[in-house]
Amino acid sequence: MNIKQLLNQNLVSWMNATRPEATIAISSRVRLARNIKGLPFPGKQNHEQGSQSLQYIEEAWKTSTNPLLRGFDFITMDQLSDLEKQILVEKHLISPGLVSGNSNRGLLFNEDASIVIMINEEDHLRIQCLLPGLQLQEACKISFRVDDSLEQKLDFAFDEKRGYLTSCPTNVGTGMRASVMLHLPATNLSGQIKPIFYNLAQVGMTVRGLYGEGTESAGNLFQLSNQVTLGQTEEEICNNLRTMSLQIINQEQLIREKLKSESPYRLEDKISRSYGILTNARLITSNEALDLLSDVRLGVDLGLIKNIKPLALNELIVAIRPAHLQREAGGEMKPLERDLKRAEIIREKLHVPTSEK
Amino acid sequence: MNIKQLLNQNLVSWMNATRPEATIAISSRVRLARNIKGLPFPGKQNHEQGSQSLQYIEEAWKTSTNPLLRGFDFITMDQLSDLEKQILVEKHLISPGLVSGNSNRGLLFNEDASIVIMINEEDHLRIQCLLPGLQLQEACKISFRVDDSLEQKLDFAFDEKRGYLTSCPTNVGTGMRASVMLHLPATNLSGQIKPIFYNLAQVGMTVRGLYGEGTESAGNLFQLSNQVTLGQTEEEICNNLRTMSLQIINQEQLIREKLKSESPYRLEDKISRSYGILTNARLITSNEALDLLSDVRLGVDLGLIKNIKPLALNELIVAIRPAHLQREAGGEMKPLERDLKRAEIIREKLHVPTSEK
Repeated sequence: MNIKQLLNQNLVSWMNATRPEATIAISSRVRLARNIKGLPFPGKQNHEQGSQSLQYIEEAWKTSTNPLLRGFDFITMDQLSDLEKQILVEKHLISPGLVSGNSNRGLLFNEDASIVIMINEEDHLRIQCLLPGLQLQEACKISFRVDDSLEQKLDFAFDEKRGYLTSCPTNVGTGMRASVMLHLPATNLSGQIKPIFYNLAQVGMTVRGLYGEGTESAGNLFQLSNQVTLGQTEEEICNNLRTMSLQIINQEQLIREKLKSESPYRLEDKISRSYGILTNARLITSNEALDLLSDVRLGVDLGLIKNIKPLALNELIVAIRPAHLQREAGGEMKPLERDLKRAEIIREKLHVPTSEK
Repeated sequence: MNIKQLLNQNLVSWMNATRPEATIAISSRVRLARNIKGLPFPGKQNHEQGSQSLQYIEEAWKTSTNPLLRGFDFITMDQLSDLEKQILVEKHLISPGLVSGNSNRGLLFNEDASIVIMINEEDHLRIQCLLPGLQLQEACKISFRVDDSLEQKLDFAFDEKRGYLTSCPTNVGTGMRASVMLHLPATNLSGQIKPIFYNLAQVGMTVRGLYGEGTESAGNLFQLSNQVTLGQTEEEICNNLRTMSLQIINQEQLIREKLKSESPYRLEDKISRSYGILTNARLITSNEALDLLSDVRLGVDLGLIKNIKPLALNELIVAIRPAHLQREAGGEMKPLERDLKRAEIIREKLHVPTSEK
């Protein structure tokens, strides 16, 4: 898939939630921070040094004989318009940091965008693997295969005692952050979210909203990740996060069962109303849509709503964001126009028969 | 139509809103208060006197050769169960006062229940004619034909100076109350309702909610009626009310046009969301349903919602009330059960295709 295809379609690999465990765990991500020895971190680079690190990495990819890297595409960020960059952010493929930065930033990505390497973001390399469902070990394995392939060509900054050296001290060590995007409507509804998050912080984990650090949670979507990168092996980080995720998923399922048995009508009513609003609204904000989509997702999970695929719901998480809407509309849009277009896209995607009214 | 048929079907004459002016004026009612000379008012009657007045009226009906009265049915209230009485109240055919009273109360009604005579309510006779749309003059004419027919057989209490004598002094004179049920969503939304009602009070008119005196307005339905029964002829009362109604209807139409042109998307969004909730909710209270039905009615009037007939909306005003729900369900219901049944009936009546989800 070249960059144009990637930009023009909604679907990317992580949305493909056909696995049974993908009902609550939407996606898993592993990213590794790496830097090239002898070059300043991106934040400290002058233009030439930035250009050099970008060039080193492009060369490493170009000359690699590893079949994994051969399937990648390369692009520099200055080849993309602001809208296109924003589309990649909305797809969760790149960070807002890569967009806001200076020149000499680039991107390497594989066919289905399950592997994306950001170049000259906070570190020289941010190797990411993003998969649907709870697949932390798989994402870990793939990330290390990419890491190994690149390490054959590049000399990474590494300290025997401290591990991988990174721009921000919180990443030193493994340079690894693993995260899981969880959909926790019942836990949130029951008021259990805060105590759970408090406990997670005690064991070195953190919870963020849909679009990473500093973003509010919307649509009952939470990103659970390791806070600590030092003193644990990569395998331990992944295993701990997986264990914790499974516990939270289990608790979410228990609370869902409880809600279902204690007030089945109220639950079905809430879900059905959200479906009714989503399939009929003519104007809708992004946050309201995410909240209503969360109810519909719960309805699909519980078998109360049929004929809607989780894939369509994952696609909508992204398709209703401003840049995607503007790509659809073919130009800049005012907030009212976005709310109008967003409502239209949701109605289309949820396949409301036109004969309804 | 006998009483069982009347009780078992939702539709009554006033709901048949096929006339073009029936979009804002739902129905028109005229009622005449009459008392039999020489008998105490119902509130002052002992059992024997009550029985006597009931008997006089039944006899007047039975012996009348007037074809209009021949088509009537007669029933005493003690032949009806509490649920059945409540069903008649919900259909707007009898007053709550007729239900809560003592024995010796009765009812005369014609084939399509457009004419109903309450016996021994506040007065010996309350002759009512209830028609769909704005048909005050027609309702007036019919009421007087019934009045004349009965007067051939009964001697009504009448004073040359004061006119018809009635139990409550506010009815003395013509004994007539004329009213129009108006649907005023745009006027209400724009905050114009209060000033209009204030002005109406200045010219001797009053506004009540859906179920008469002391009831709250719900679903933007307002009953406009004359407050004064003395010093005006029946024709003047009807004409004044009609003129005032036409002014209010005109203003409602102007505000609708304004809303449509100033914020078409917001208006369509509000209407569509209400439709979406009504056709999907699993639990709904009576007041919420009336408010949402008001939006849908506005949508039908404005051509935004098709395939829903005003008749169905009028039917729903009544079919979602507690007694009608309990008749449907075949027994007593708790509030939650009513909310469930109400939501079911609304979904059925609005004909949501089952293939929707």
